[in-house]
Amino acid sequence: MKRIGIFTSGGDAPGMNACIRAAVRTAIYHDMEVFGIKYGYDGMIKGDIFPMDSHSVSNIVQKSGTKLKSARSKDFQTKKGRERAYYQLTRFGIEGLIAIGGDGTFTGAKVFFEEFNLPVIGVPGTIDNDLFGTDNTIGFDTAVNTALQAIDKIRDTADSHDRVFFIEVMGRDSGYIAIQSGIGGGAELVMVPETETTITEVISTLKKGWTRQKTSSIIVIAEGDEAGNAVEIAEKVKSQIKEKDFRVSILGHIQRGGAPTAHDRILASRLGVGAVEGLREGKKNVMVGIINNQLTFTSLEESITKQKPLNPDLIRMVDILSI
Amino acid sequence: MKRIGIFTSGGDAPGMNACIRAAVRTAIYHDMEVFGIKYGYDGMIKGDIFPMDSHSVSNIVQKSGTKLKSARSKDFQTKKGRERAYYQLTRFGIEGLIAIGGDGTFTGAKVFFEEFNLPVIGVPGTIDNDLFGTDNTIGFDTAVNTALQAIDKIRDTADSHDRVFFIEVMGRDSGYIAIQSGIGGGAELVMVPETETTITEVISTLKKGWTRQKTSSIIVIAEGDEAGNAVEIAEKVKSQIKEKDFRVSILGHIQRGGAPTAHDRILASRLGVGAVEGLREGKKNVMVGIINNQLTFTSLEESITKQKPLNPDLIRMVDILSI
Amino acid sequence: MKRIGIFTSGGDAPGMNACIRAAVRTAIYHDMEVFGIKYGYDGMIKGDIFPMDSHSVSNIVQKSGTKLKSARSKDFQTKKGRERAYYQLTRFGIEGLIAIGGDGTFTGAKVFFEEFNLPVIGVPGTIDNDLFGTDNTIGFDTAVNTALQAIDKIRDTADSHDRVFFIEVMGRDSGYIAIQSGIGGGAELVMVPETETTITEVISTLKKGWTRQKTSSIIVIAEGDEAGNAVEIAEKVKSQIKEKDFRVSILGHIQRGGAPTAHDRILASRLGVGAVEGLREGKKNVMVGIINNQLTFTSLEESITKQKPLNPDLIRMVDILSI
Amino acid sequence: MKRIGIFTSGGDAPGMNACIRAAVRTAIYHDMEVFGIKYGYDGMIKGDIFPMDSHSVSNIVQKSGTKLKSARSKDFQTKKGRERAYYQLTRFGIEGLIAIGGDGTFTGAKVFFEEFNLPVIGVPGTIDNDLFGTDNTIGFDTAVNTALQAIDKIRDTADSHDRVFFIEVMGRDSGYIAIQSGIGGGAELVMVPETETTITEVISTLKKGWTRQKTSSIIVIAEGDEAGNAVEIAEKVKSQIKEKDFRVSILGHIQRGGAPTAHDRILASRLGVGAVEGLREGKKNVMVGIINNQLTFTSLEESITKQKPLNPDLIRMVDILSI
Repeated sequence: MKRIGIFTSGGDAPGMNACIRAAVRTAIYHDMEVFGIKYGYDGMIKGDIFPMDSHSVSNIVQKSGTKLKSARSKDFQTKKGRERAYYQLTRFGIEGLIAIGGDGTFTGAKVFFEEFNLPVIGVPGTIDNDLFGTDNTIGFDTAVNTALQAIDKIRDTADSHDRVFFIEVMGRDSGYIAIQSGIGGGAELVMVPETETTITEVISTLKKGWTRQKTSSIIVIAEGDEAGNAVEIAEKVKSQIKEKDFRVSILGHIQRGGAPTAHDRILASRLGVGAVEGLREGKKNVMVGIINNQLTFTSLEESITKQKPLNPDLIRMVDILSI
Repeated sequence: MKRIGIFTSGGDAPGMNACIRAAVRTAIYHDMEVFGIKYGYDGMIKGDIFPMDSHSVSNIVQKSGTKLKSARSKDFQTKKGRERAYYQLTRFGIEGLIAIGGDGTFTGAKVFFEEFNLPVIGVPGTIDNDLFGTDNTIGFDTAVNTALQAIDKIRDTADSHDRVFFIEVMGRDSGYIAIQSGIGGGAELVMVPETETTITEVISTLKKGWTRQKTSSIIVIAEGDEAGNAVEIAEKVKSQIKEKDFRVSILGHIQRGGAPTAHDRILASRLGVGAVEGLREGKKNVMVGIINNQLTFTSLEESITKQKPLNPDLIRMVDILSI
Repeated sequence: MKRIGIFTSGGDAPGMNACIRAAVRTAIYHDMEVFGIKYGYDGMIKGDIFPMDSHSVSNIVQKSGTKLKSARSKDFQTKKGRERAYYQLTRFGIEGLIAIGGDGTFTGAKVFFEEFNLPVIGVPGTIDNDLFGTDNTIGFDTAVNTALQAIDKIRDTADSHDRVFFIEVMGRDSGYIAIQSGIGGGAELVMVPETETTITEVISTLKKGWTRQKTSSIIVIAEGDEAGNAVEIAEKVKSQIKEKDFRVSILGHIQRGGAPTAHDRILASRLGVGAVEGLREGKKNVMVGIINNQLTFTSLEESITKQKPLNPDLIRMVDILSI
Repeated sequence: MKRIGIFTSGGDAPGMNACIRAAVRTAIYHDMEVFGIKYGYDGMIKGDIFPMDSHSVSNIVQKSGTKLKSARSKDFQTKKGRERAYYQLTRFGIEGLIAIGGDGTFTGAKVFFEEFNLPVIGVPGTIDNDLFGTDNTIGFDTAVNTALQAIDKIRDTADSHDRVFFIEVMGRDSGYIAIQSGIGGGAELVMVPETETTITEVISTLKKGWTRQKTSSIIVIAEGDEAGNAVEIAEKVKSQIKEKDFRVSILGHIQRGGAPTAHDRILASRLGVGAVEGLREGKKNVMVGIINNQLTFTSLEESITKQKPLNPDLIRMVDILSI
């Protein structure tokens, strides 16, 4: 393989730039040529493709967002769109693809591979950490630390006013950010989509804390929790407990930004190296990941469809630590 | 004056602890005794009052929130409540008060002084910076920097997706946080209660930017803006521009927390020293502030009622810099 | 086991407090009593021992340093000192010990166990990450991120002046902090005790970079590197290259402080839970660690004597990524 | 005036980019053309000059360092060098200059103006804050906060080990960073070039603290202190006090980097606007500054030669607050 293309797609995640940098330099190291494709599948269809050299990825290892930009593409969901995309890639002589993104990105990559047999390796880049085939996705550690720093800030003010805070973090289908930032932030309770928590349990946890001298409390809620979002849950609790002061904070998009942590830069770099070397070795239609500190390849199919469960140790710990 | 009391009241602000520390140590330096009053006026009424020594304020200069806690007090709004508070203070032999807080705190302090003639000095502690008689209030600089760091994070993701972000910052009646974080964050537009901005102007600013290669835009909105909150403004804009991706982020309570900046620690320390030395010199019924780097005293009356206007240079600058 | 003691010893590491908190609460959860021992072995000998309850570890999960303090103890190196320590522990009815620290701490714990047969479990707390039996030690991730943020700051100024910076990070016998912060920081070269790098290689790496448009360069050096410390290495390079501007920065003790990262808080919490539950289950003379995301117990003997090698993938990556 | 040039010179300071951005956009706003001059006077001589538009300063408001780079120039110290520089400027039709830097920069600017009568306005950009004619220089607030955050980190570890830390901050001739970070960091003592502190006083301050339950102490030293640098001072103290643990930390170049604070971005923006509008209004041979929140112009002569004294209130406060 002599010429590869690289793109990012779906929601951006801190560390994507470190991964692009690693992939570009690894390709050059192995005497391959690299082309950047801007705006994901949309740019692929439009031919927004340009050659990258070592210098073009200088000074981006510390930057969040993605230098290659990201966009949704309705056209790529059509056969015609994908044909156009394939035509553009052949026009540039691209023989292999590196697709950095989440499950939407990989779904597209899989269909594209099946139709045109162009080798593609996916790299897991999403703050949600909801992909099977890797212990962590790029951006997850940074998002958790951003959420944690916000919780640290809120704890100070909660404590000064003896308040209860409901803090909503990202995670539409998964409680990874919630459980980690909740444990790290010393939350009294963490509500995640993976387990059911009733309003009765929320109230009982709060009351237990108050009997033990706790004057303020923090409840971390994943945005996708089955009991509702933070505002809804707060309303329900408030309607049953009158004498306390409740507040809601939705952390929102700050969780997508910020200089990536060391962990995310290193993970992203390893996966960028791994993706390029994987393509060279003939791997295709797979996602590169790191499990137990070892580089691994999982079929795109599995990476999307298999469930990665929350660590039950962590769920159990919330109970113990909020005593 | 041999014995003084100190308390915090109203919304907490980063730097309040640095101020408490400075006041306590200055009192000791001048051979006075200091009593901490917990939970503001509420604790005053309940007699939640305790002696403080130099060691009791160790290692708090860097902490946000308030060690003395804060609370609302309905009882203090009644004559009977204030009589009870005065009784408690006399019981502890307290001859002067330092009240750290915002306009609500000072309104209470003023009434209390008028009724019982107990010397009181107010210290401006509120992130909103909306008090007359001081260039900056304690906590304002930290809140601005917290908002700014959030905007920096959001800019990365906005830029990756070519999005428009409406970011709501704190400031119910004043645009101080909005204007400073907006200029610092390179916002295209800042919407503050002090000036009127129509939806038409918002749209025209956005369009002007797009014609000049700007792919992403940030609009900072003070929560008290007359055009509505960030969600409402975003809806109105969205209804007129279909082809763009809009997002809203409400920064919320993180703006009240976080280790105070150097500026806030030094301001808080100077005001804490100034308040104690002011009481010693016989000042009363005033707020201590710093104007043009000089310690000044303004009557509580004026500090609450007079308007502190936004710097017009800053408002004009937003226009120039977003070119 | 009904009553346990806990202490920290050796250099402090961010996350030690989170570990103390987790251990105390887990003990209470299992109806055990916990005693804190201040100043490590020194306090053990002096009987500086006090009961801890759930509230005594409130609001410390986010604080670096150690609430239990740390100190060196010459007396504990004598038989007589250890006998005195044992006497104190029995006086308080302590039946098991949790020792948080590094290899010095564990060497003491091992000897103590052999002499008095008091069950002890070590918890790896050191920023150096040089203990066998756990993927990461408490404090390591925070130290790496602190070093990385410093490198990010230095890169900006290096780049503005086209300078070469030699940055010395902690790690007397191990290059863990250096290799991770170096990769994360986009260093041109990382010098660690585990591998030999000659001055000739340093110069050749620098020159290679300059031929590829690199105007500034960063070389990260572990303090224990065999080629000397950062000042010495810089001098040697300077003597051979006249036309460039070189600077040295020794990051020093900031690497021991700062709010622990999410990773360190969670690791510390898991190990704190694991240590207490290990004692309950009869484990002794072992260190608790996490390998491949699984709680594991390694004999204290092995944890001290066995070498934990640097990941060779990381060493190789420095070369590729600095192309 | 239709065409101006802008450059940075001397040590870089966070906020220089925000200033460049503001100047460029203000010029465009007033229908002027702007040329960037790279590497300060050196680039001026070499003709390293290029046109800048609004887009060329996008997304730099938050970046430290200087996009225009900085360098020393020996050639500019010769008449011949300056003639060459003038020739290059005329070649590009440049009618006015904005020089961002410190006293070295302004010394050059003044000579150049006297020789060629080309209007020049200086903008104070240096972390040291040692320029007369402005309350603060660009970069100072950021440097203080960086130093403060480092001191916060060190305090945690100092406290865990009951240690004394000597922390050296930048400031060759001035104690501005030292006094502000020292007060903000709760230092027991601050040593600055402006006032004399003997080793006897250092020891007496330390001993006083120990008698008052202080277990750890922090002494902040400006690098230019007359008593020596941190290592020398520590040695002298150590030789007289045996029983304590002393450590030295030299913060170094991290103080030059990091995203500028809100204060520095706004100051830099105001000064950038002010410099361009000053040139338009015919100002020349002056430095633009902000005193008491008002834009002011001071002759370059005065800005370099007059002394800006430390605020005596601050010096006095260190004593009171370390009680």
